Amino acid sequence: MFIAEIMGVGDELLYGETVDTNTAEIAVSLRPYAVEVRRTIRVADHLQTLAGEIRQAWRQARLVVLSGGLGPTPDDITREAIAAALDEALEPDPAVLEWLERLFADRGWKMPEANRKQALKIPSARWIANPRGTAPGWWVHREGKDLVCLPGPPAEWRPMWAETLPQLHLPQKPYKQVSLKTFGLGESRIVELLGGLFQRNGQVEVGTYAKVDGVAVVIRGQPNLVDPLAERIRPLLGEAVWGQDDDTLPLLALRTLEARQATLATLESVTGGVLGALLTGVAGASRRYLGGLVSYSQAAKAQLPMDPGIATRHGVVSAAFAEALASAAREMLQATYALSTTGVAGPETLEGQPVGTLYVGLAGPDGTKSRHYRLPGASREMLRQRAAHAALAFLVSELRGAR
Amino acid sequence: MFIAEIMGVGDELLYGETVDTNTAEIAVSLRPYAVEVRRTIRVADHLQTLAGEIRQAWRQARLVVLSGGLGPTPDDITREAIAAALDEALEPDPAVLEWLERLFADRGWKMPEANRKQALKIPSARWIANPRGTAPGWWVHREGKDLVCLPGPPAEWRPMWAETLPQLHLPQKPYKQVSLKTFGLGESRIVELLGGLFQRNGQVEVGTYAKVDGVAVVIRGQPNLVDPLAERIRPLLGEAVWGQDDDTLPLLALRTLEARQATLATLESVTGGVLGALLTGVAGASRRYLGGLVSYSQAAKAQLPMDPGIATRHGVVSAAFAEALASAAREMLQATYALSTTGVAGPETLEGQPVGTLYVGLAGPDGTKSRHYRLPGASREMLRQRAAHAALAFLVSELRGAR
Repeated sequence: MFIAEIMGVGDELLYGETVDTNTAEIAVSLRPYAVEVRRTIRVADHLQTLAGEIRQAWRQARLVVLSGGLGPTPDDITREAIAAALDEALEPDPAVLEWLERLFADRGWKMPEANRKQALKIPSARWIANPRGTAPGWWVHREGKDLVCLPGPPAEWRPMWAETLPQLHLPQKPYKQVSLKTFGLGESRIVELLGGLFQRNGQVEVGTYAKVDGVAVVIRGQPNLVDPLAERIRPLLGEAVWGQDDDTLPLLALRTLEARQATLATLESVTGGVLGALLTGVAGASRRYLGGLVSYSQAAKAQLPMDPGIATRHGVVSAAFAEALASAAREMLQATYALSTTGVAGPETLEGQPVGTLYVGLAGPDGTKSRHYRLPGASREMLRQRAAHAALAFLVSELRGAR
Repeated sequence: MFIAEIMGVGDELLYGETVDTNTAEIAVSLRPYAVEVRRTIRVADHLQTLAGEIRQAWRQARLVVLSGGLGPTPDDITREAIAAALDEALEPDPAVLEWLERLFADRGWKMPEANRKQALKIPSARWIANPRGTAPGWWVHREGKDLVCLPGPPAEWRPMWAETLPQLHLPQKPYKQVSLKTFGLGESRIVELLGGLFQRNGQVEVGTYAKVDGVAVVIRGQPNLVDPLAERIRPLLGEAVWGQDDDTLPLLALRTLEARQATLATLESVTGGVLGALLTGVAGASRRYLGGLVSYSQAAKAQLPMDPGIATRHGVVSAAFAEALASAAREMLQATYALSTTGVAGPETLEGQPVGTLYVGLAGPDGTKSRHYRLPGASREMLRQRAAHAALAFLVSELRGAR
């Protein structure tokens, strides 16, 4: 098995000022290949240290991938460190310098002197174009080994890596992964439901991962084993399964609305905009998502077209209030469906209801209904995210049921 | 300067199924000490690899801290790896075994055989009690060096580390950090503005960190140098500085509103709920943030109390439209101030305006104004986040100016 070494460069990664997710994402992208990732490293902006790490990695690995440290500031020392480690000299590339200058000129700026170093390269490296930033990457192929160095921002390195990885011609291994996405089941409940199917051996392994959109049950390993196992696991999880693999709840909700030529409005209390933000995070959302209201204060709620007596009689954290909110939103925005959220995100309880209480209202052509949840979640932000996803899962399951 | 090596152990850390924040948190806890953290490592559950990493770390460092891999499963190999690296033998400790058995007995369970290994220790280690789990830690003091190994869950290792760290008697160093938070300046522009003040030597260092709420300029090092340097840097950044250290824009906006006994409403087009979500992410936001509208579709915009001719004459991505939106929101929610966002989050351009274009409208007792931005940002999500923070930075600067 060949070894791959993955490094994130930057003091901010060591101290968590930027949480390093790059190295993990790159490690995941290598899963279909017969290379082993035995460690990942975050290295300080410290020339000797980084050069030393690269030298060691280059000695023992078939592939070295670095991200970060390609910016224009004096902190950015990845280019220098690779040059030192591979014993080559940095040389300016006039074509890249010209490209950089044009990039700035297009925005009406003069290129700062600091950016000149982004046009430096060692002879054995070829450029990896960066369509979204000023830091092109390097691909070094030498002695039957590869070193790829990418910028730090995910939106920049992702397309660069997607283009480079297949060109490395790494040995592939038969590999498949199926991710069953559930909402409403806890991890220990899933372990119980799966029983002996919760396997972990050299050929196939099952894992559960709790996220804001529920628990993903991931089955990975040899393709001929993964699919049959997934087919046995799926019915055990029942209606909790809302999607698979790359599905997301906002995307699925909008796609389901599209299929029914329906529109959606939202009225958010406890989620305070998180639900709208999730929906509008999908490009083209406006075709199906008309918009919504964030009625955070009592004053804002008083202006809604609904019977103020409902809050008095049932409380604002109640099924009746959630349904009234959904109806009001549907009416105001003249949407086919409307979702509402009301509940307790904490830190304090509300109307005697504990933190984590959530009611989601759903108004549609067939009337109004609601669901009650007791969400787990250690933080206010986690609870708000879970609540918004609960609302979307509710919508998706209802629209599917009504089909 | 002594070196400290920090390692997180576990396959799940390498692949991001569990996001490793332990190594960063431990690195931050070492900042007041004269030890240098030049890298942090995440290591797979692979005995030879981990033993090799520990051996190398022990050779070059004054302090080695490990977290994870102390559980009862066959995957948990940290104990074995340390024993191999330090060339000592694992021995069962009858007292710890008894404590473990009692722990299970207290819950009415028989201790599984698998847990026996949690009572193993090498002779040179002393136990670190774990009040919240079944995995006690180790503290090895040998050859004038220290190795501390802790369990993975933060709730378990934090109190253990808090107790152990002072006992290590690490040399302390005078340390201070000031973070100046800016909005509206790029990193390379800041480097230019700072010129020779962008220092980086053994005593004080300056760094820039780009986040969705702008670029933070961090000055850290010897307290007697940090404060004067921060005082020289601050005026160079001018009005771009909106806060310091732990300040966040939502918190600052709400605090500024509180100080003026003012309320806020929002009307979001391009940010689609992100602005509301940021504000309501602060507990107690409802005292000052009344709520808002997400007018994502043309249909929803048509229902606002504003002259529809504005969109026709100026376009929806325009200063005039942003101001009209802000006025409408202020009127509808009867707020002291209202913020609006309109622009282009991509991936497509809109009305011939490029992705990244943003207009923020602000309506208040003194009338209505707007600002135009060309935001950098490689992804739709990043742009929306930046746009929402731009709106808050605008509000904060205007409210401060009006004081």
